[in-house]
Amino acid sequence: MIEALCVSSATPTEEMNGAGNLMDFLDEPFPDVSTYEDFHTIDWLREKSRDTDRHRKTFDGKACTLAGVIDLAVDWMTDLKEGVCLSAFWYSHEQCCWTSNETTFDDRDKCPQWQKWAELMTGHAEGAGAYVLNYFLYILWALLFSFLAVSLVRVFAPYACGSGIPEIKTILSGFIIRGYLGKWTLLIKTVTLVLAVSSGLSLGKEGPLVHVACCCGNLFCSLFSKYSKNEGKRREVLSAAAAAGVSVAFGAPIGGVLFSLEEVSYYFPLKTLWRSFFAALVAAFTLRSINPFGNSRLVLFYVEYHTPWYMAELVPFILLGVFGGLWGTLFIRANIAWCRRRKTTQLGKYPVLEVIAVTGITAVLAYPNPYTRRSTSELISELFNDCGALESSQLCDYINNPNMSRPVDDIPDRPAGPGVYNALWQLALALIFKIVITIFTFGMKIPSGLFIPSMAVGAIAGRIVGIAVEQMAYHHHDWIIFKNWCRPGADCVTPGLYAMVGAAACLGGVTRMTVSLVVIMFELTGGLEYIVPLMAAAVTSKWVADAFGKEGIYESHIQLNGYPYLDVRDEFTHRTLATDVMRPRRNDPPLAVLTQDTTTVEDVETLIKDTDYNGFPVVVSRESERLIGFVQRRDLTLAIKNARQKQDGVVSSSVVYFTEDAPQLPASNPQPLKLRRILNLSPFTVTDHTPMETVVDIFRKLGLRQCLVTRSGRLLGIITKKDVLRHMAQMMNQDPESIMFN
Amino acid sequence: MIEALCVSSATPTEEMNGAGNLMDFLDEPFPDVSTYEDFHTIDWLREKSRDTDRHRKTFDGKACTLAGVIDLAVDWMTDLKEGVCLSAFWYSHEQCCWTSNETTFDDRDKCPQWQKWAELMTGHAEGAGAYVLNYFLYILWALLFSFLAVSLVRVFAPYACGSGIPEIKTILSGFIIRGYLGKWTLLIKTVTLVLAVSSGLSLGKEGPLVHVACCCGNLFCSLFSKYSKNEGKRREVLSAAAAAGVSVAFGAPIGGVLFSLEEVSYYFPLKTLWRSFFAALVAAFTLRSINPFGNSRLVLFYVEYHTPWYMAELVPFILLGVFGGLWGTLFIRANIAWCRRRKTTQLGKYPVLEVIAVTGITAVLAYPNPYTRRSTSELISELFNDCGALESSQLCDYINNPNMSRPVDDIPDRPAGPGVYNALWQLALALIFKIVITIFTFGMKIPSGLFIPSMAVGAIAGRIVGIAVEQMAYHHHDWIIFKNWCRPGADCVTPGLYAMVGAAACLGGVTRMTVSLVVIMFELTGGLEYIVPLMAAAVTSKWVADAFGKEGIYESHIQLNGYPYLDVRDEFTHRTLATDVMRPRRNDPPLAVLTQDTTTVEDVETLIKDTDYNGFPVVVSRESERLIGFVQRRDLTLAIKNARQKQDGVVSSSVVYFTEDAPQLPASNPQPLKLRRILNLSPFTVTDHTPMETVVDIFRKLGLRQCLVTRSGRLLGIITKKDVLRHMAQMMNQDPESIMFN
Repeated sequence: MIEALCVSSATPTEEMNGAGNLMDFLDEPFPDVSTYEDFHTIDWLREKSRDTDRHRKTFDGKACTLAGVIDLAVDWMTDLKEGVCLSAFWYSHEQCCWTSNETTFDDRDKCPQWQKWAELMTGHAEGAGAYVLNYFLYILWALLFSFLAVSLVRVFAPYACGSGIPEIKTILSGFIIRGYLGKWTLLIKTVTLVLAVSSGLSLGKEGPLVHVACCCGNLFCSLFSKYSKNEGKRREVLSAAAAAGVSVAFGAPIGGVLFSLEEVSYYFPLKTLWRSFFAALVAAFTLRSINPFGNSRLVLFYVEYHTPWYMAELVPFILLGVFGGLWGTLFIRANIAWCRRRKTTQLGKYPVLEVIAVTGITAVLAYPNPYTRRSTSELISELFNDCGALESSQLCDYINNPNMSRPVDDIPDRPAGPGVYNALWQLALALIFKIVITIFTFGMKIPSGLFIPSMAVGAIAGRIVGIAVEQMAYHHHDWIIFKNWCRPGADCVTPGLYAMVGAAACLGGVTRMTVSLVVIMFELTGGLEYIVPLMAAAVTSKWVADAFGKEGIYESHIQLNGYPYLDVRDEFTHRTLATDVMRPRRNDPPLAVLTQDTTTVEDVETLIKDTDYNGFPVVVSRESERLIGFVQRRDLTLAIKNARQKQDGVVSSSVVYFTEDAPQLPASNPQPLKLRRILNLSPFTVTDHTPMETVVDIFRKLGLRQCLVTRSGRLLGIITKKDVLRHMAQMMNQDPESIMFN
Repeated sequence: MIEALCVSSATPTEEMNGAGNLMDFLDEPFPDVSTYEDFHTIDWLREKSRDTDRHRKTFDGKACTLAGVIDLAVDWMTDLKEGVCLSAFWYSHEQCCWTSNETTFDDRDKCPQWQKWAELMTGHAEGAGAYVLNYFLYILWALLFSFLAVSLVRVFAPYACGSGIPEIKTILSGFIIRGYLGKWTLLIKTVTLVLAVSSGLSLGKEGPLVHVACCCGNLFCSLFSKYSKNEGKRREVLSAAAAAGVSVAFGAPIGGVLFSLEEVSYYFPLKTLWRSFFAALVAAFTLRSINPFGNSRLVLFYVEYHTPWYMAELVPFILLGVFGGLWGTLFIRANIAWCRRRKTTQLGKYPVLEVIAVTGITAVLAYPNPYTRRSTSELISELFNDCGALESSQLCDYINNPNMSRPVDDIPDRPAGPGVYNALWQLALALIFKIVITIFTFGMKIPSGLFIPSMAVGAIAGRIVGIAVEQMAYHHHDWIIFKNWCRPGADCVTPGLYAMVGAAACLGGVTRMTVSLVVIMFELTGGLEYIVPLMAAAVTSKWVADAFGKEGIYESHIQLNGYPYLDVRDEFTHRTLATDVMRPRRNDPPLAVLTQDTTTVEDVETLIKDTDYNGFPVVVSRESERLIGFVQRRDLTLAIKNARQKQDGVVSSSVVYFTEDAPQLPASNPQPLKLRRILNLSPFTVTDHTPMETVVDIFRKLGLRQCLVTRSGRLLGIITKKDVLRHMAQMMNQDPESIMFN
């Protein structure tokens, strides 16, 4: 059970208790109100009607401060693998050289304050020996960071692993995972996220930051009984928190809201849209005050160019979209296959070893290639940028023309120099490396996001295509396709734009976002002019990827783990009826029901002992089978326990009354037990002829946990969310037993 | 009834038939399938389950071509009021002077090809006589255009008036207004929109363009029986069309999708989001190919500046938000009061006269002020722009410093010249004029949008505030609030940004958009850096406006017209139960029901004659009151009519059977009529104890038309959408009889 939650190995109960010990502070059950058990589904309609007092909610931007700190810590630790700042060891490479006086644009990489390890230890900055020493220390640091990360996760907060988005989707759809959003998870995930990103593994911090933000939101909820007692209200706050999470992760406030809407949230009333918007505003505002990207622009990968694009370029853009779709498909299939292998074989028993091994391989392969050695965000940033006249990157080693003083946007056509060809090779190797290693990295027992690695794959591919098109346009101005839009001497192709489009396509292929993807991309880059290329790539990528399988990476992981998640996007198109899905089936024993005035306390206790249903329908009598309500197992247990303890005269033979008035009984009879107050008088019903399509729709939109089936007013059976999910799995030729939870 | 649809005066039936004659091509009822009657509500669940074949839908961008043509026509006709192009009379002022050879930036306003009417007719370009003649002709053209517009609307397509968004919201929420999206409406609205905008009235073309796009979408639906026969599917296409409409109106593809999601659509599954996204992409692509704004940027009010803003500036931004909220409240209240007056008094009987009068007043007052004489889009564009060194506008009459060659972004602090002070006065007058005239213009019997006038009000106010802050900062560098961020010699305040923020605030106050507003604003202007100011203004404006009344202008008009629109945003928080709302009430006659095997054809016919219910529940017997299904009135009428005509032996005394098998009757009895096939076996039921809050939620989310109420399996009553709306109106202390339709 817990295995699904990427904790693996130990037996479910052990793990759960272990986790519970540490993390059960937040969600203490209230003995008087009925709450839900762990790994159970909530009933939205019930929560909604339980919510009596309503106030305007405010949301705090605590997550932002955290995100700012994370950003700074990651920068410092990533650079720590290579060297240290002599003037102040807590400075990252960039900060170190900022403060250095001699910083001009050209020699920023070689400021004297910053020393690589080899130089510091041996005094030699160059040479094979120094290189090997640096290489060795790089690997050592990486292993240390990742070992710390995985150990902390193992010991203190098993829920802190992974990106957390599949679980948050499931929680938001109305599922209880106690402690998943607890303060231990928050603390440990924050610390290990920094370690994991710094270790150089091919993972990002965006997904985990959504989890961290949701933990903050949950903590916030626990301060107000209105939210902590109502699972529906709590989920509204969590949706807003998820929006704030993306806002701070990317500095994309609107993109965050849309991501929360399109990808994460399940139950998203417009009121939540508005709240998310406000949360995102606070987040953006706080971020702007902290200013972690060092510019006042709130934009992570700001692009400087505003050169127009041409219609003919749509062809490579759409090809990049196709690539993105294929990458998405390949990644999802391979990653799911690998994760399934991890779950089912011995592999899953050694999570620490696995992390160490992958970190080792990553470090060994990454160091020699300058494009993989640096942090992935830096790589993407460089790939997105156009080559200005002053750019010192190898990617910009064009055979320059004399007038270097022209503004950045306006460099005419450029033949590539040897550096560019060299960079192309290195980029191609980096592409293959990133593709392969990301498949094995995502899903390990450390915090790991997917946005940045996906974007990196796309950006590399895009930049390669971009340079290819650029050089083709330069060398073949006379080709018919270039003739119209690319005159000699004009700067007609911007390779950075191709990187941007490629990144969007790959991210889209993996996550299947559409609107939020494009908004995030232009909030990330400021490239509002490129909305059509970005949209075209996103659409193509989604089409191609959807052709191979409807599910994005998060849904695939949800399915792999067997969470009871009813995807709002799946169309249920089969012609089955409620009667085909409801229980009891034809040869099953009859439905376990209570009658309104003939069941005894003993009968009820037997029923509770013999079955594990979450609740029981109450009927007028077994003959008429007229439904009057539904009673929760938990409420029933509590009520009987209370009555036995506190109410005199309630014995096993007492009759349980669900009617409004219990009849006056002779004194010889045992005192009756009146339980109408725990009876839900408005259970949801459908008729046995209702098409399953409608039933699925009702479950989805109303967030039901169960639904009773009647015919001509007679109770026939019950359909639970799990039955619906099982039926859907069956209809899609999947194993219905993969749905594990209640 | 029709009066509500801004047609007024004539009696409902007359008008409806009149409209019907012209516009009933699209929605011919299919005699075999049951469709809905005009001014009736559809049943979403039923439509959903009726949709048997599903294919991927594509969407065309026809609306764009139309929008491009509209743009060009409006430009030409607006300029026609002032003068004509000698070289080619079909050129607008701008086009005329583009082609002229002598065009340099400075004297573009005075190119010889373009002649004002006075110059053309008398040979004098200057002087009081010429001014009066121009003034007179300006008014004449305006009156001509508006008279043509209102006459065309009156005669050919009464539905073409107004912005159309309230009606489209209602249609999308599941209401039938036949002909509202017909081809006549499309044609006439397109033509009269051009006339109305050109006449100089204070109205925009954005809202009507959404209506036009929806007409296109509806025409597209009528080509495929899948969409034309299913009202649910049709609405999905219409949602996508609305997105495409905003995309072309503003050149804001993402903003269009979000507008469709946040403001227009009712039933918005994620699949629709994705389709809208695609529709918007096609629209953006087509628009980019047509390029009506004359730049390749797809941006209507592109701003050139990228100067940063400062934290202290949030104070004026928030003040602008407050202004926007107040303006929204004032506008909505005044406009609704005026429209109610129009509906209830003699005023509504003279729509042509009203339009002529308002046009006359507008033209007389607008001409003398240069800021109101020009088209509102041009005004907004000028107000948004920062003063570059080359700007010739009066607003930019700063006492310039010598170095004129510095780039646009980087002009240091500027003392205002006399032109600026002059402009401030004119702007203040324009502001008052716009505020007053827009209240009387919106809701007249011509196509009229609200986006542009609202933005204009905000932009004027914002620019005034911006200049005030700028001059304050210049003259009082030493004030504590300016000291930190506004050094002498630095260009620290950008008045254009204030105009942008003001426009967003005012638009937000009127429409109550949030996310879509901000996205539209930055797609309109390209000012991605200003996301926090825009968000802050939008949030403040919504708060302030919501404090005075929850409804935006579109919801207010829906309420004024009594459409059956169940707003997804209204929270229903009262503690009433289904039993309080259902009919029959306590003293009413019992519910009209059919029994499954004892009703005769005559009984049914009597029932149909005596009542006007849309359908009847079918029960096992009147004694048991066990519900077995629900039958539509229309289906029943058709079935009996068919049987009487075609089926021998069906007479008045024939028994109607809703059971699976009719019993074998002796030959002497009349032949039975089996009607199980028209029986809906899965009617929606709730118990009488269900809280109305849950019932409202169910109606909203599932788009129900009616819902049956049971207790212990017995049928008690029925709740229709109209009952729900009436109950909600009652709970909000409004007149429940304002809900007019079924």
